[in-house]
Formats: sequence, C-alpha cells, structure tokens
Amino acid sequence: MYYKCMEGQQTIGIVGGGQLGRMLTLAALPLGFKVVVLNPSPGSPAAQVGAEEIIGDLYDSAALQKLAAAADYITIEIEHLKVSTLKAIAAQGKPVNPAPATIELIQDKFKQKEFLAQAGVAVAPFMEVTDEASAVAALKKFGGKMLLKTRHGAYDGRGNMVVSSVDDIKTAFEKFGTAALYAEKFIPFTKELAAMVARSVSGEIAIYPIVETIHKRNICLEVLAPAQADETALKSAKSLARKVAQLLDGAGMFGIEMFLTRNGKVLINEIAPRVHNSGHYTTEACRTSQFEQHIRAITGLPLGDSSLLIPAAAMVNILGERDGPTKVEGLHAALKLPHVSIHFYGKSPTKVDRKMGHITATGDTVKQARARALKARKLIQI
Amino acid sequence: MYYKCMEGQQTIGIVGGGQLGRMLTLAALPLGFKVVVLNPSPGSPAAQVGAEEIIGDLYDSAALQKLAAAADYITIEIEHLKVSTLKAIAAQGKPVNPAPATIELIQDKFKQKEFLAQAGVAVAPFMEVTDEASAVAALKKFGGKMLLKTRHGAYDGRGNMVVSSVDDIKTAFEKFGTAALYAEKFIPFTKELAAMVARSVSGEIAIYPIVETIHKRNICLEVLAPAQADETALKSAKSLARKVAQLLDGAGMFGIEMFLTRNGKVLINEIAPRVHNSGHYTTEACRTSQFEQHIRAITGLPLGDSSLLIPAAAMVNILGERDGPTKVEGLHAALKLPHVSIHFYGKSPTKVDRKMGHITATGDTVKQARARALKARKLIQI
Repeated sequence: MYYKCMEGQQTIGIVGGGQLGRMLTLAALPLGFKVVVLNPSPGSPAAQVGAEEIIGDLYDSAALQKLAAAADYITIEIEHLKVSTLKAIAAQGKPVNPAPATIELIQDKFKQKEFLAQAGVAVAPFMEVTDEASAVAALKKFGGKMLLKTRHGAYDGRGNMVVSSVDDIKTAFEKFGTAALYAEKFIPFTKELAAMVARSVSGEIAIYPIVETIHKRNICLEVLAPAQADETALKSAKSLARKVAQLLDGAGMFGIEMFLTRNGKVLINEIAPRVHNSGHYTTEACRTSQFEQHIRAITGLPLGDSSLLIPAAAMVNILGERDGPTKVEGLHAALKLPHVSIHFYGKSPTKVDRKMGHITATGDTVKQARARALKARKLIQI
Repeated sequence: MYYKCMEGQQTIGIVGGGQLGRMLTLAALPLGFKVVVLNPSPGSPAAQVGAEEIIGDLYDSAALQKLAAAADYITIEIEHLKVSTLKAIAAQGKPVNPAPATIELIQDKFKQKEFLAQAGVAVAPFMEVTDEASAVAALKKFGGKMLLKTRHGAYDGRGNMVVSSVDDIKTAFEKFGTAALYAEKFIPFTKELAAMVARSVSGEIAIYPIVETIHKRNICLEVLAPAQADETALKSAKSLARKVAQLLDGAGMFGIEMFLTRNGKVLINEIAPRVHNSGHYTTEACRTSQFEQHIRAITGLPLGDSSLLIPAAAMVNILGERDGPTKVEGLHAALKLPHVSIHFYGKSPTKVDRKMGHITATGDTVKQARARALKARKLIQI
C-alpha cells in the first residue's frame, strides 16, 4: 500500500530496488519523501522497507517512463539500465541524477578510462582490445601482466581477469565470449582506497574520508575508515576524488575507487555514479550517511556534514556462502560483540558471493573496529 | 505487500502503528525481522516504512489475537489497549513484552504510584480522589496546590490539571467528567529528568544517559542529552531509574520520567513501558538507538552499547501548528544548519500539538546542540 500523506509531498523514483535502493528508501522516508522503485521482480529489498514498486526490466523504456511519471526526481542504484530513455526523461524536464551522460560514460569502462585520461587524471595504462591478437600486443606492451576487462555490465568481480600469458588470453576470450573488452596494465598496489563524494544540484560538494577497501575475487569484502596511509597519499587521494567528481555531470553521491601504488602514487580505478558499498560505514560512523546525503543532493537540499563522528569504523560484507533459501544463523553471537551493527538486505535465495548484508563495527582504532567486524562476520552463517 | 524472505524468519507484532511503531520497524527490518502492526486505520506511520498492517481497534480482542497469530513476538508502542487479551496471548505461550501485568499497572496512574511508593521509590505525595469533597481534602493536605490527574488514558498532556482553589477543582471535575482521578502534591522542580532503561528477556540491563526534558502544556517539547545537573543528582537519578526498571516485569525499553526538586532530590514522575519520546535522540547520539535496543531486548538478542557517542544532543518535537492537511515548509532552510537531522512521521492531517516529527541536533555542548535544534524547529512550518 502506498499513501501520499502530505500535500505537496515529493516522490523519489529509483531505478533498481536492491540493497542500495533499500538504504536510500530508509533515508528518504524520514525526510518526508515517498519512494518508488523500478525492479524486475516483486518483493525487492527496497519494497520491503516501504518503497512502492513498479515491476519491469531496467532496459524497458516503458517501465522507465512509468517510473518517471510516478516520481518528481529520478535517480539510480545501478548503472546497468537503458540510458537513452533516461536521456529522454531528462529532456522532458524531469530531474535525473546522476546525469544520463555520466551513466552512459560509466557504462563503458573503456570510455570512462579514456575520459579520465584525457582530463589529465592519473589512471593505469590501458588500451582497447578488439581480438586475441590485439590482446597479445597489449600484454607485450604492458610488460607481460595485465587485466582483461569487459567494457560493459561488469560488477562485483564479474568481467575481470588477470592474464600473464597467451594461454590466459585464450581462456579469457572463451570466458567473455563476444563481450567487448579492453586491457589495463597490472599495477602492483599496496592498498586500494576509495572516497565517497557528494555533489548537490546546486554544486555544493562534500567529501567523506578516504577509506581503504579490501577485495577478494574482485568483490569488496571490507572497508576500513579512515584509511591508514601516509598524509601525502591521503591528501592526493582526496584532491583526486574531488577533481573526478567535478568532471562528471549531475548530482548525487559518487564512489571513487583508487589504487595506492608501491611508489606512493594514487591512480583512479573506477567510478560509481551512485551510493556505493565503500560508503556503507557512513550510516554508523558519520553525521550524515551516504544515503541521506544522496537524497539531499538530488532533491536540492543542503548537504550534511560528512566527517567521521568516531575514531574508526570497519565494514565487512556478508556474502552468501551457499546456494539455496536464505537462512541466517549466528545473529545472537554476533550482536554480543560490542559496537557491532548488522544490516540484512532481505534477499532470497542466498547465493555464493551474493551480497546478503553487511556489518559495521566501530572502535577507538581501525584495528579494533576491524577485529570486531571480522569476528562478527565469522559468527554468522547465511 | 508482505514477503517472508528468509527461512525461519521471525515476525515482530506491534500493538500500534504510530511514530514509535514506525521507528521500531525501521530498526527491526535490517536485523532480519518482519514487522506487523495493529492499527485502527490504514496507512499508519509504521506501514509506510514496510510494516504489514492489521486494521483494528487496540481494545478489540479478535484484532489483538490476529496480531498474535501473525507474529513470533508481541510488543507495544502504546499502553492504551485491552490488557486482558494480551494476558491471554501470553498464557498461550507467545512472548509478550513488556509483561501484560506491567502494562496493566501503567494504565492506572494511581496504581502505578501506589506500586512505586510501596516499593520504597521516592514519588510526590499523592492520594485517591473519588469526588469533589475528597479533592478539596487533598488540596488542603497538599498545602493548597496540587495536580488532578485522570488515572487512565492520559497522554501528551491530556488528563492533567494544576489546581489551587475549590473553583479550580470544580473546573477540573467538569473537564474530566466521569473519569477516575487522583491527586498529587505540586512539587516545585528545577528540572525534569528522564532515562531510558533496557532490560532484555535474559535479564541484561542497559541504561542510557540521564537527560533533561522540557514540557509545555504537559507535552514534551525538548530533550537535552546529557542532563546538566550536579553529579549527585545524576547518580541518584541513574540508580533510581535502574531500580524502577528492575521492579517491573517483562523486557524492553522503559522510559523513566523524574523530577529534580529544588532541594536536589529525585522523584519518579511516571513510567512508560516502551520506547519513549525522551529517547529519540539516541538514534543520532548513541551507538544503539532505543528502537534497536527494544527489538534486541524483546527477541532475546544481546543488548547493545547505550553510551553517548558524541558530547551532546538536543531533540525538539515538531508539533502540529494548525488543523488541516499536512504540508511541510522550511525543510531546506532547516537542513542548512549543521548537525541537524529531521524525522517526519508521515501523519496526516496535522493538528495543533499533534506530534508530526522531531529534530535531533548534535554538538560539542548541550547549549550548541539545543540552539541548532531550536533554530531548525523555527524554520519549519507544519
């Protein structure tokens, strides 16, 4: 059931009703907004917390137009959608944020890299790959170790492969099939860093602390806030994140993922034009969560404070451990640990490596917060 | 729409779907619970954020039984309900918290006072009033100034009157009609204090900081955390709050309202066996909000940390300013202030003095937080 309970009440339309849509909904409702999400199947994580649901594919123009008709503001929780329709919706005068042009740029990782390189932003060396021969040439150019990445549709580790031989390249081409690819030099990094940056429709900018992200199998496992790195690196990461956010059109949160190389250089890895897994810790650790900040940013409200409230926080993802109906065990033991918060997304079934929830622990030091979060994670089965 | 998305997923049934039910729902869902509320009319504040709704009167036995059938745990957000049915539900083996006997005690303010006095808890002198003659006798006994209070059904200032003459008593009896009354000596206090105390089904106790509450027309207007009072008074308030919570049966949050008298003594004013307006600040200011703590307490989960994360917080209620359809103005200006959070409850219509939302501001000092919250409140019209 869906009620407009206030005169002049405004509705936020979100493309996608997954966990990001859910947490955006949880932030939007207390501010007095209504939320409607477009999702391929009913009972989405967002609908479970009070969003109205339009059922449809994110590449279905009619469904996107239906969302637009029901909402005063359009935003996204996932960038894999029909961008031409969002452009049409924006052209009709409906506020769409991030800008469709930004989503389009992000959809093609190769174009994203080109854009950043042309703007003078430090990125790892990369090149287009059109066939196995050009991949072999890239491997030679990049010193015998590189990443082959699909240009489109990759997320949570799907669409990335490290290759260091012609055999590896053959395997990658078999795996990726006809997908368009590009190659990126393998850069040994000491840490992966990230920052959430908010820009509002009025141009106001707020930057969250630089955090460290830890990936395995190309999936984000942990986020540590603040990142433990030398001041120069943190400063350069912060100014790089701000620069990148300023390059992109449209309002909202931007998740900026970076590499800190062995020689202390910061490179941009990739950009998410939306709230992001590396910003989940902000719910417990910052005065304004990334979710509330995004809602403020796209609706023209002033941005909130983005600093850390507490010395340290650690976020650990709860990834599915098996395939089957969702069943949670260990909640009691995990909540026995001090300063631990747990967020389930209401997804079923559980699948290996599916993002089912996350844990945020806080503490006096990153080490303490991380130990709490990891211990809590170990106690939960899903 | 209502989905059970996990095997063995448990449902919390809440009697009442107002703002307290709403904030309990917002806390329960991320922990993996489902929520169903009993509410007299559809589209309650709780249903708007994802609670399933059973429509029925809180004094309707069949409706309460329907709620019980749909839930694994029963709790309340308001104590004005048919307690005999809750007793029957508990007797059937369903966990009901707080205990129905505690709710019954709280429902009759006179019995509540008797219970506290008999347990040796300091309260203001009080006596039963059966007619105008006994009220006149009470007035004489209490030195010419006292409160006449209805024993049942009073909240947010309805059912309280200060009297200091026989004429006042006549007016009170006209106003209260046939309602059962009692009299309480008027105690000049310097401050009103409150504390939220959690007790879990396993007997674990967590006490939140002592706060100062500011009432006008007997409605809570502001809450300041922590209370600014001398250490002895704060200590005695804390131990009194703990004692009172231990006297009462059942688990959950208890809101303990107190007076700090001119001679530095702490008296218990009244008890709410549930989450409470004086604990709303915990959402922003504490590691575990009163709402999550209540969910933990009634479901047998371990209690979370209840200390202040930040130096100070101030909560200001957003009371309706007129009668009519709800329309909010001034959100933009209010959110421009730093460290201000705003929660609307999704209620319509607005009415004079109806609780429509609240503002929590944080700061380095109570003075700073309060100035921010009051300024934000002034900027909002509703």
